[in-house]
Amino acid sequence: MGLFSKDIKNMDDLFLHQVQDVYYAENQILKALPKMIDKATDTHLKSGLRSHMKETKEHVARLDQVFKSLGEKPQGHTCPAIDGIIAEAEEVAGEVEDKHVLDAAIIAAAQAVEHYEISRYGTLLAWAEQMGHKQYVAVLQKTLDEEKMADKKLTSMAESKINRRAAS
Amino acid sequence: MGLFSKDIKNMDDLFLHQVQDVYYAENQILKALPKMIDKATDTHLKSGLRSHMKETKEHVARLDQVFKSLGEKPQGHTCPAIDGIIAEAEEVAGEVEDKHVLDAAIIAAAQAVEHYEISRYGTLLAWAEQMGHKQYVAVLQKTLDEEKMADKKLTSMAESKINRRAAS
Repeated sequence: MGLFSKDIKNMDDLFLHQVQDVYYAENQILKALPKMIDKATDTHLKSGLRSHMKETKEHVARLDQVFKSLGEKPQGHTCPAIDGIIAEAEEVAGEVEDKHVLDAAIIAAAQAVEHYEISRYGTLLAWAEQMGHKQYVAVLQKTLDEEKMADKKLTSMAESKINRRAAS
Repeated sequence: MGLFSKDIKNMDDLFLHQVQDVYYAENQILKALPKMIDKATDTHLKSGLRSHMKETKEHVARLDQVFKSLGEKPQGHTCPAIDGIIAEAEEVAGEVEDKHVLDAAIIAAAQAVEHYEISRYGTLLAWAEQMGHKQYVAVLQKTLDEEKMADKKLTSMAESKINRRAAS
């Protein structure tokens, strides 16, 4: 969409814009995850990120379904938010020396990503309900629940032995 | 911190880096909020953003306290994540024509900001607890609770008459 035009006329346009935004985000996350998995040293963290990568592929497939129902071609809309979150994650990871501290930094970065997605899917879900688009509610709720669960798992890792090792 | 150096040696360095990151974020949010308040048309949304601006000033003051306890000068660390989230908010708001749809877009943008902060303060809190820095726990928890409450209020606005008007 153009930067200087008023392309968003109604809630349908805003909904589509947000779907394109999160589609772009999910695809950027899919590109970033292998680097995070590679850098992580704790096996539990590595396997957690790997299983979230599988989920992320399903989230993209679910968005494909949403695009199809909307009668639109699946395409992302370049959005600086997720680019900034990923750039920051890579910047911080590049500055950390100790491997346990690096794990703590990776967990923090992954939680920033999860929370971005939670806010986006939460918004899409609220809009779908308001607009009476019942066909999208179940699929968006499923992804939102998985993002929240991924965040919870990361929180318990942040409170667990991984961080205790880093703090010692 | 330098991009190509390994400046983060331990959890104390990582904790300070994150405090600087969120200090920068809070200050960028303080700059962005007046524009969002100005653009919002619903009076309930406007007053909600105004009261969150007051809270944000307190969050900055609390971070000043944390810096003081750490024996560090309060300073932000430029971080692309919040810059990206705010840039995206301004970009989308600039594309919306209808005032009710604009309110819906502003609520969504504010929730992305809140979730970024929730993830950052949540991480800081987990680290403070792990590192036995009890002196920071209460102050971080207070801000985290306020960010979560701000997000909840935005969710109820997203599910309320503001969005129903936008969707109609």
